[in-house]
Formats: sequence, C-alpha cells, structure tokens
Amino acid sequence: MKTLSENKSFGGTQGVYSHMSEACGCEMTFAVYIPPQAKDGPVPCLWYLSGLTCTHENAMTKAGLQAHAAEFGIAVVFPDTSPRGEGIANDEAYDLGQGAGFYVNATEIPWAPHFQMETYIASELRDLVTENFPVSVHHGITGHSMGGHGALTLAMKYPGHYQSLSAFAPIANPTASDWGRKQLGAYLGADETLWTAHDATVLVKEKGWAGDVLIDQGAGDQFYELLKPAALIDALTETKTAHTYRLQAGYDHSYYFVSTFARDHVSWHAERLKG
Amino acid sequence: MKTLSENKSFGGTQGVYSHMSEACGCEMTFAVYIPPQAKDGPVPCLWYLSGLTCTHENAMTKAGLQAHAAEFGIAVVFPDTSPRGEGIANDEAYDLGQGAGFYVNATEIPWAPHFQMETYIASELRDLVTENFPVSVHHGITGHSMGGHGALTLAMKYPGHYQSLSAFAPIANPTASDWGRKQLGAYLGADETLWTAHDATVLVKEKGWAGDVLIDQGAGDQFYELLKPAALIDALTETKTAHTYRLQAGYDHSYYFVSTFARDHVSWHAERLKG
Repeated sequence: MKTLSENKSFGGTQGVYSHMSEACGCEMTFAVYIPPQAKDGPVPCLWYLSGLTCTHENAMTKAGLQAHAAEFGIAVVFPDTSPRGEGIANDEAYDLGQGAGFYVNATEIPWAPHFQMETYIASELRDLVTENFPVSVHHGITGHSMGGHGALTLAMKYPGHYQSLSAFAPIANPTASDWGRKQLGAYLGADETLWTAHDATVLVKEKGWAGDVLIDQGAGDQFYELLKPAALIDALTETKTAHTYRLQAGYDHSYYFVSTFARDHVSWHAERLKG
Repeated sequence: MKTLSENKSFGGTQGVYSHMSEACGCEMTFAVYIPPQAKDGPVPCLWYLSGLTCTHENAMTKAGLQAHAAEFGIAVVFPDTSPRGEGIANDEAYDLGQGAGFYVNATEIPWAPHFQMETYIASELRDLVTENFPVSVHHGITGHSMGGHGALTLAMKYPGHYQSLSAFAPIANPTASDWGRKQLGAYLGADETLWTAHDATVLVKEKGWAGDVLIDQGAGDQFYELLKPAALIDALTETKTAHTYRLQAGYDHSYYFVSTFARDHVSWHAERLKG
C-alpha cells in the first residue's frame, strides 16, 4: 500500500492511498478519513460508494463528510468506482466501463479480467482497510446514485458485513432502468435472471435486510426516472422492512444535495455502529 | 446577468452567474450562495476571495461554506480570481495572469486592458450583487492565500466597505515575497513605492483597520515562507489592531485546512454583520 497524500482535516487525517488489487488486477486508488477519536482506539467504519464517472476524489472533496465523521468519531472509506488505466477495457459512454463498475463481478469479455468491483469492495479492500487503519469491526455502508445501488445491494448480499445502511438517490431498480440494463447486460451477459442479484428492489424481497435503512431522494432530481425510487419503497413497504424515506423538495442529483444531508447520514450510521 | 446554474443547497440556493464586466472588459463568472433566511428579507453578505489558480468554483465546491452560511443566515459571494478567455493576456506560470489577478488594477502592458480586479471586486461586482440579490448593506470579506491578501488589502483600502474581516493563510507581506514581488512588478511596474498600497503588512501601519480581524494559518503550510504571516502579526501587534491569530498545528495550505475552520470564520462575520 502506497500513501499518495495525507492532509489534516477537522482534527483527523484525510489520506489517499493506492495498492495492487488482486481482484481487479491493477493498481487501485482509494481514500480514507480517520477522525481524531481514533487516537483513543478503533472507530467504526463507514463505506461511501460513489456514482457514475466518479473516482475516490469526488465525494472526498465535495460531500463535506469529514466534518461529520470528526463530530461522530467514525472513519470513512472512499473507494474508486472501477478499475482504471491503460490496458483495461473501457467504453466511450460515460456510463459503462471505467468510472462505471456498478459494484458487480463481471463475467463477460472484455470486462471480466478487471471489473470485479463486488469482490474488491466487499472483501479485498475491506481486509486491507481493516488491517492498515484503526477501524473497528463495526462497518456501515452508504453511497450516491450508482453508489447507492452498490451500498444497498452489497449490504443485502453480504449479511453481517454491514451493520448500518443508507443511500443518497440510489439507482433503486436497475433491472428496469437504462441505468442498469445496459451495464448488467454488458458485465453479466444476456441472461436477465442473473441480473436480479444486483437489484435492490428485488433483493429486498428475496433476501431482505435485517436492519433499517435511510434513503434520501431529491424531488427535483434530473435523473428521477432512471433511479426508480418508488419501486424500492414499494418493496420496503411490502416486506415491512424498517426504513426512513425522505423525498426532499427542490433538491437535484448533485453534491449540493448529498452535502446538505450528509450529516444526517453520518449520524444515522454512528448511532447504529456505536450503539 | 446570465444564470448558468442554480442548485438547492442547505435550504438555500447555490447559483453561478456571468455578466459582461465593464472593469475587466470581458465576460466574468461568479457564484452566490443565498441562505434560506433571505426569504424573510435581506441578509448580510460575505465575500470569499480565492487563491492562485482558482476560479469561482473551487471554494464553492470544496470549502463547505454553504452549511455555515445557512446556519448563520448570511450570503456568500465567490468571485473569479482574474479576467479570462482568448484575447486576454496570460502567462505560462501558474502565478501570473489568468487565475492570478492579485486583486489589483494593473497599469502595465499587457495586463492593464483587462486586469482590473480591485475595481471589479470592490465596486462593479459589489453593485451587481447588491442590485440583484437579497443582500443587506452589511458586507464582510475573507479569502484564502492570494484571496486572503485581497480581503485584507481591500478592507483597509476601502474603509466602510466591509464591516468584518478575516483571512485563511493570507499572502501577508507580498512586497517582501516571491508571491507578490513578481506580480506587483508585472501589474504595477518597477516603482516599488506603488506596490505598498497592496501589502497588508504595510497597510495596517499606514491606513489601519478600525475593526478586528481573524486570521487562521496552518503550521504545516507548505507555502509558509511565501506567506510571511509573522510580518503581518508584528504590524497588528505594533499598531494595537484588535486581532485573533491562530497558528493551527498540523494543517497545510489546502481546502482541508480552509473547510476545517470555515465555520469559525462564518460565525465571526455573522456576529459582526448581524450584531
């Protein structure tokens, strides 16, 4: 693991690191914020998964999470959204390939050799972070847009991995959306029955979520039709899964929306991870 | 004035606008955050001047000021740091020309036709903002690095314009620094006696500041030697100008430093502008 930068932030340290990923077969960059409370012992760890086109850097610089992480004493991990670099498959579209890993393990050519983001996030990077940073066994997960999809699906696919869950404007029903069908088809192939294991709306009904979940969605979100929040809320309601869903008047899909409600999410996770 | 974008943020509106500037002779872009309290009437207005290489966008997306502006009920203006575009003089160096206006009115060729940032900030944009946004007659000014220099010098050059003053890691004594001598020489010419009107350390002694001033400086700032905070603090002490100077252990020159202390600065201004 290489340290690319470390900056003092709200009494803690915002670091950027890279390592050779076995799952993705390439050098991967990620960021970790360690709050000042970690001086006194391991702190809970919140995973923030980013959306289409993002690297580790977007949320790290624009979501304002460090202030809240320092207030509540939890670490935050900002992974990249895909493998990257020369020699790694890509597509001209912003929503496929590099920057658009969709948090699945690709089985199809040309994606399969490197696009193993599910294993990378849920196993490899988790082990690396746990071994190298002062974080406790209490992990939570959140994310924005494609990252909200990642948070919801990984939490349900790996019971016990994450003790708290939330999402900002998640891609909530990708098997029924152009943000999903294109990517799941490319990464997993034409058999749609394989896609449903990566659809939060389906997973709520098939696997369920033992805890509760906080979801914020902007009512003015320019991608509302692609996100399909209503399908997920219906599934949460139908299965009586504990949830708080807030449709926020006037907010769009940007980091202005994420940063506005970031404190509520960190507070939500801290309560469940430290309680 | 054209609206380029508006996003809801912390209950208020983060907007980006452009207009044809008479002072700079070109289209200029700026950003304004209007807090939710403005629905009930005009709010005080804080000017945030940015540093070398920045546009209106850097602090708008990375400093986290909107949360605090919404909490304390003040507007924030984020101007650009120079005129920009084709046909406008520039230099290959990052610290001269576009992105490096230094908040002075250039008298020298090739800069004089467009680089009139002092008049632009203190007069033209101020009038535009006052006419077009729900801001009161109470204005404060702050800034980072070159923008801290701009805040300190404009506040002292225009008594009564700004009722509150602070700075993050300002270029505090530019006539004695490579961050200053190069630019003041280029924009104002070889006569160094003309430079002193744009040096906060000199201005404190020659013009003074009737209020108090808050200055934060990172002890781990990689540009500490160029900023020369000690000269300014000596001048503030010598003239018995009320000030709070905080040398912050471990912090560098980045937005991680600015964002960490941003709330303290907004609170400082709000107390003086609303008191």
